[in-house]
Amino acid sequence: MKSKQAIIFSVALLVGQMCFAQTNVLEDFKPSTLNQPGQEFPEVNSQGYARFKIKAPEADSIRVSLGLGGRGGTLLTKGADGFFTGTTEGPMDEGFHYYHLSVDGGTFNDPGALNFYGSTRWESGIEIPAHDQDFYALKDVPHGNVVQILFNSKSTHSQRRAFVYTPPGYNKNISKKYPVLYLQHGWGEDETAWSNQGRVNLIMDNLIAEGKTKPFIIVMTYGMTNELKWGHMKDFKIEPFQTVLVDELIPYVDSHFRTIANREHRAMAGLSMGGMETHAITLNKSNVFSYYALLSGGIYTPEELKGKTKPTLIFISCGSRERPDGVKNAVTALKGAGYNAVSYVSENTAHEFLTWRRSLHELAPMLFRN
Amino acid sequence: MKSKQAIIFSVALLVGQMCFAQTNVLEDFKPSTLNQPGQEFPEVNSQGYARFKIKAPEADSIRVSLGLGGRGGTLLTKGADGFFTGTTEGPMDEGFHYYHLSVDGGTFNDPGALNFYGSTRWESGIEIPAHDQDFYALKDVPHGNVVQILFNSKSTHSQRRAFVYTPPGYNKNISKKYPVLYLQHGWGEDETAWSNQGRVNLIMDNLIAEGKTKPFIIVMTYGMTNELKWGHMKDFKIEPFQTVLVDELIPYVDSHFRTIANREHRAMAGLSMGGMETHAITLNKSNVFSYYALLSGGIYTPEELKGKTKPTLIFISCGSRERPDGVKNAVTALKGAGYNAVSYVSENTAHEFLTWRRSLHELAPMLFRN
Repeated sequence: MKSKQAIIFSVALLVGQMCFAQTNVLEDFKPSTLNQPGQEFPEVNSQGYARFKIKAPEADSIRVSLGLGGRGGTLLTKGADGFFTGTTEGPMDEGFHYYHLSVDGGTFNDPGALNFYGSTRWESGIEIPAHDQDFYALKDVPHGNVVQILFNSKSTHSQRRAFVYTPPGYNKNISKKYPVLYLQHGWGEDETAWSNQGRVNLIMDNLIAEGKTKPFIIVMTYGMTNELKWGHMKDFKIEPFQTVLVDELIPYVDSHFRTIANREHRAMAGLSMGGMETHAITLNKSNVFSYYALLSGGIYTPEELKGKTKPTLIFISCGSRERPDGVKNAVTALKGAGYNAVSYVSENTAHEFLTWRRSLHELAPMLFRN
Repeated sequence: MKSKQAIIFSVALLVGQMCFAQTNVLEDFKPSTLNQPGQEFPEVNSQGYARFKIKAPEADSIRVSLGLGGRGGTLLTKGADGFFTGTTEGPMDEGFHYYHLSVDGGTFNDPGALNFYGSTRWESGIEIPAHDQDFYALKDVPHGNVVQILFNSKSTHSQRRAFVYTPPGYNKNISKKYPVLYLQHGWGEDETAWSNQGRVNLIMDNLIAEGKTKPFIIVMTYGMTNELKWGHMKDFKIEPFQTVLVDELIPYVDSHFRTIANREHRAMAGLSMGGMETHAITLNKSNVFSYYALLSGGIYTPEELKGKTKPTLIFISCGSRERPDGVKNAVTALKGAGYNAVSYVSENTAHEFLTWRRSLHELAPMLFRN
């Protein structure tokens, strides 16, 4: 969301220029693909502008959290018909964005949009059409399943949920066994994020249909990250989640799905704080996972890998609006130390889901090739 | 929601008595079990009252659609702290209720509650603790899975979604085959309703753990009912959905899951408009299904069953606040004509999900016993 244009507008706002002529905004707006059934708004155009329309005849003020990278968002204008309307001041990054409304000082979701779990609440979502959106589109190809499982966790005294992607064909050839990727969401999100926002099943279905990746199972569970307030990440202790993942979930998956249950066929990846978890757990348990991937979620250094079982592959990625040099330099250092490491930078995206959809699309074909 | 008490309050409102002393409201309020993570409100008490608290410092008016059975709902009172609070004027029926907020004339969801698809939109949900809630509780028993499938539909030129409940053990004994229940939602809902609002997987897990039902597969897909405006039900044509269900989904399920693919091991049931669909499709395709169930969704007459393949069982149910006599009389007539028919009336519930959870709980043990 922190596009250059948005930053310029933001500065302009600060110096008091409150009104902008939106020159050259193309009037090819269409409903966002993440709208609720039958809802026209929010709309998006081919340039990445978003337009909102909210009914609230007696309200005084509605502001949309999108459009200025968190620095105020888009203030809507009330019409005589009781609808508030408005368009973002600039185009937004391609891909998925969370947002919400401030209605007379209260925080509500847009009644036109579907909701997605982020920021520790169900938020509205909008999809800015991406030039490469074909790789995560719903197509007429064989589809895998997304399986909701409930597993008993003794360490937390709870029945916990995970989602398991099984590739197309899983239910056809019932003797075949598959490798497994454990894939973690970020802070504020939960086990629904990779399927709903990340479209992980469609990315895999499409890659498999094109013969670009080996079919494998993907397991997504809640990383127990959200009890921690934003800004207190250093207080996070990995052990409780590591116990759930390694000692409870992995044995459940290996006994309930047709997995190849060994280190060489087990990967772990995570986005943002899920990358931090991946980093910690793979280093603690280098005998459990052989492929490691951090998506906008930090780096590995050769020093911290010393003395551990050597990973088959390390994948490190981020958006070009994050810290691509940090990612590239880390991979250069890892390669120099003899590790099989790959970097990937998503062009023109930030700390957001298009970065992670693309990262998964790059990562999947590199997994389990041995 | 149409409790006697609510109706009395409603009449009182009409004659201008706008203020009620809520005598004997127990102050044992707890967060609704359907709240978003970490949210205290809405709260419910042991008598069935619900209490709401919404932040909107600059708003003039917030009304909750619950509490008077659609005749105005519960008007909240604004406090000096910018929060609107209020308690329903009377207790509500036990179980699940949809609701929304009117904030200064606009329709929004309660930011404290989870959302459920009903009324053709994602609505807030609240759970009034039921005296018999144990049968749909999440317990430490073996759990089945809820599997999201995507199947190609030639007749509608689309990739369609369904959810498939597979019972505990499905992935363990991979030679065993299972009967299948096709289970439909009501108008305004979709294929998520039976899992999310209906808790179908937990009801089945618990019944199976107690040895009270045979394990079977349940398939839930979108009944294509929502393109029709409420009040125009007679315009509904069953053929498009019947084609998707019978000619596309059933073959997909039979080829991708371990089903016993014959009439004797196939049931169809539906709630409300899903019952209307069940009624039409079972009569059109009496060679496809052998168990029929209508949950608050009409009746069968002996006359319309004449000349059809005889069903193994007909189950007809509703809430005691609906038309229980109609259900009972229909079953008496069916029995008199030589059909194996069973009626069930859910006590103290109306056209709402506790009626349907209980109906499924009664129905499941009667299925596939031959």
